[in-house]
Amino acid sequence: MKIHNFSAGPCILPTQVFQEASEAMLNFDNLGLSIVEISHRSKNFVAVMDEAVALVKELLHVPNSHEVIFIQGGASLQFAMTAFNFLTETGKAQYLDTGVWAFKAFKEASGLGDAEIVASSKDKNYSYIPKGYNIDPHSDYFHCTSNNTIYGAQLKEFPLTEVPVICDMSSDIFSRPVDVAKFDLIYAGAQKNLGPAGATLVIVKKSALGKSGRYIPAMLDYNTHISKESMFNTPPVFSIYVSMLTLRWLKENGGVEAIHHKNEAKAALLYHEIDRNPLFEGTVVKEDRSSMNACFLLKDEAAHKDAFNALITEARINGLAGHRSVGGYRASMYNALGQESVQVLVDCMKKLENK
Amino acid sequence: MKIHNFSAGPCILPTQVFQEASEAMLNFDNLGLSIVEISHRSKNFVAVMDEAVALVKELLHVPNSHEVIFIQGGASLQFAMTAFNFLTETGKAQYLDTGVWAFKAFKEASGLGDAEIVASSKDKNYSYIPKGYNIDPHSDYFHCTSNNTIYGAQLKEFPLTEVPVICDMSSDIFSRPVDVAKFDLIYAGAQKNLGPAGATLVIVKKSALGKSGRYIPAMLDYNTHISKESMFNTPPVFSIYVSMLTLRWLKENGGVEAIHHKNEAKAALLYHEIDRNPLFEGTVVKEDRSSMNACFLLKDEAAHKDAFNALITEARINGLAGHRSVGGYRASMYNALGQESVQVLVDCMKKLENK
Repeated sequence: MKIHNFSAGPCILPTQVFQEASEAMLNFDNLGLSIVEISHRSKNFVAVMDEAVALVKELLHVPNSHEVIFIQGGASLQFAMTAFNFLTETGKAQYLDTGVWAFKAFKEASGLGDAEIVASSKDKNYSYIPKGYNIDPHSDYFHCTSNNTIYGAQLKEFPLTEVPVICDMSSDIFSRPVDVAKFDLIYAGAQKNLGPAGATLVIVKKSALGKSGRYIPAMLDYNTHISKESMFNTPPVFSIYVSMLTLRWLKENGGVEAIHHKNEAKAALLYHEIDRNPLFEGTVVKEDRSSMNACFLLKDEAAHKDAFNALITEARINGLAGHRSVGGYRASMYNALGQESVQVLVDCMKKLENK
Repeated sequence: MKIHNFSAGPCILPTQVFQEASEAMLNFDNLGLSIVEISHRSKNFVAVMDEAVALVKELLHVPNSHEVIFIQGGASLQFAMTAFNFLTETGKAQYLDTGVWAFKAFKEASGLGDAEIVASSKDKNYSYIPKGYNIDPHSDYFHCTSNNTIYGAQLKEFPLTEVPVICDMSSDIFSRPVDVAKFDLIYAGAQKNLGPAGATLVIVKKSALGKSGRYIPAMLDYNTHISKESMFNTPPVFSIYVSMLTLRWLKENGGVEAIHHKNEAKAALLYHEIDRNPLFEGTVVKEDRSSMNACFLLKDEAAHKDAFNALITEARINGLAGHRSVGGYRASMYNALGQESVQVLVDCMKKLENK
């Protein structure tokens, strides 16, 4: 029986991707060898890497000014790498504080140099996206997090500024169109819409690099990875392979524009029920609600928690618990989650109301 | 038909591990979910991490003074991390230069502070291990690489010194017993005897940390990962899971002591043929020959190369080409490679002689 996986990440990927990856663990490319036991410099794996990079470029319409690389360390290592590569000794960086991860990025930069928070929604437990702030035109860069996985708030628009914009898109990349040209650097841990944890996607404007004037350890220098085409050292081969399979699936299904349509429909279905059903309430202001992670509460948890939990367990819903810092429920609706799973959740909410 | 995989890394892992990992991609722990789509904080994955750590401790007899963590970035990120954590602003580090990777480690440290090479075998293309050098007792640490994957030279003994010893054991960890207590830090990329590329094992003496006096980015600070039990951020779940399966297999097969015995027998079988067969010659001095990576040449390549390559292709031998900096052949005989595969290679060498 099908399980409806609303996990916040690592999360659901397309069924056909799991199937192909499972087969490749035993026999990849009909070599009689596992994908994880061949050289990363073999023509078979180089083809995987090349296709993954080409699919990222195609699906996100990456302009020629930007390079696409895969590295390790997750978004958390990017917090340090972006600062090492973009923050000068005498300059300053500006951060938009919209949640735990955005703040961690700020903290890492402030360990290395001068970093400031331009605006924060911490005052209301990150339940909205700050607007109307000013970005200092003399700062080295502006950093933001496009979607807050924990709190379920999402930037629907990015600020207009002349300074380089660096964006952590870990939890909504490939879920909606994005104008890559407007960003000097985009990074994303793979484990939401891309692939298994262990790979990090970076899209960076080549001409923006080499300006921090700092000593940068080789592995933290984007130019190292660009010059070696993501093979300075052994890449996380399996995560990249599965990411490539997921990108193929996305392309077969109409690309980012088509999936965006589906994601909007899924989110509308769930948020409509959250707003309609008198037993529930959303935690984020309507205009900033994430289409990836919908956070909501039972208005009377003491009265209804056990009954609702029994309903979702019976419906084989997985991963719906809210993050410990928000409580309640969090429905993560990444690309691979079908609308039928959202419908099952909505049906549980209706059943609770009708009890 | 079985393929004999002598690849230098990523490399062969036990067949039963590939089988279990393939199944877990579809249905892990009978959850109806893939190992890569569940939360890394779920009890099912936490159990995987705990078992992986416990098996490392058991199999290597890790003393209580040392912590075991899994991180990302491969040995190459360790080159920087070890320097950030152990090299003081006014102190110096000493490096043994026994190959490409050892030199890269030195280079990374010398970017951050004062690093010196105490001895090098570069004069003879890294075909031996330097001996009789002196380690400055006032240095912050001594760094060495236990086995050189590219050149096939291996440290059979480690120098006696009072300064902290840091060792890159990427390509021979779990292949032979090692007295962990003698090292302040051991690191190893997973992709030889442990699991798929993407995870890095670190074994570190807790009391040796926190002394460099430097600003250390959170992700480069060993204490970050120790305090969060390798879950400061999303770990490379699949690589750690497969590593755990490989360690289980190693334990079931008698542990490090038993596999060491088998590895010695495999190496003896191949080196005996290299020495005996008038058509071949080894590239490394006998006393320093690696039991993991045996490098050898055809004495008359022009005359015999095509015939030998045809023989190994026919025998379904994979990954035997030498690294471009050495040429010839490299037979990597990691833990999971059976003696029967080495015998197949030896038979090819004999057939060439008899032609």
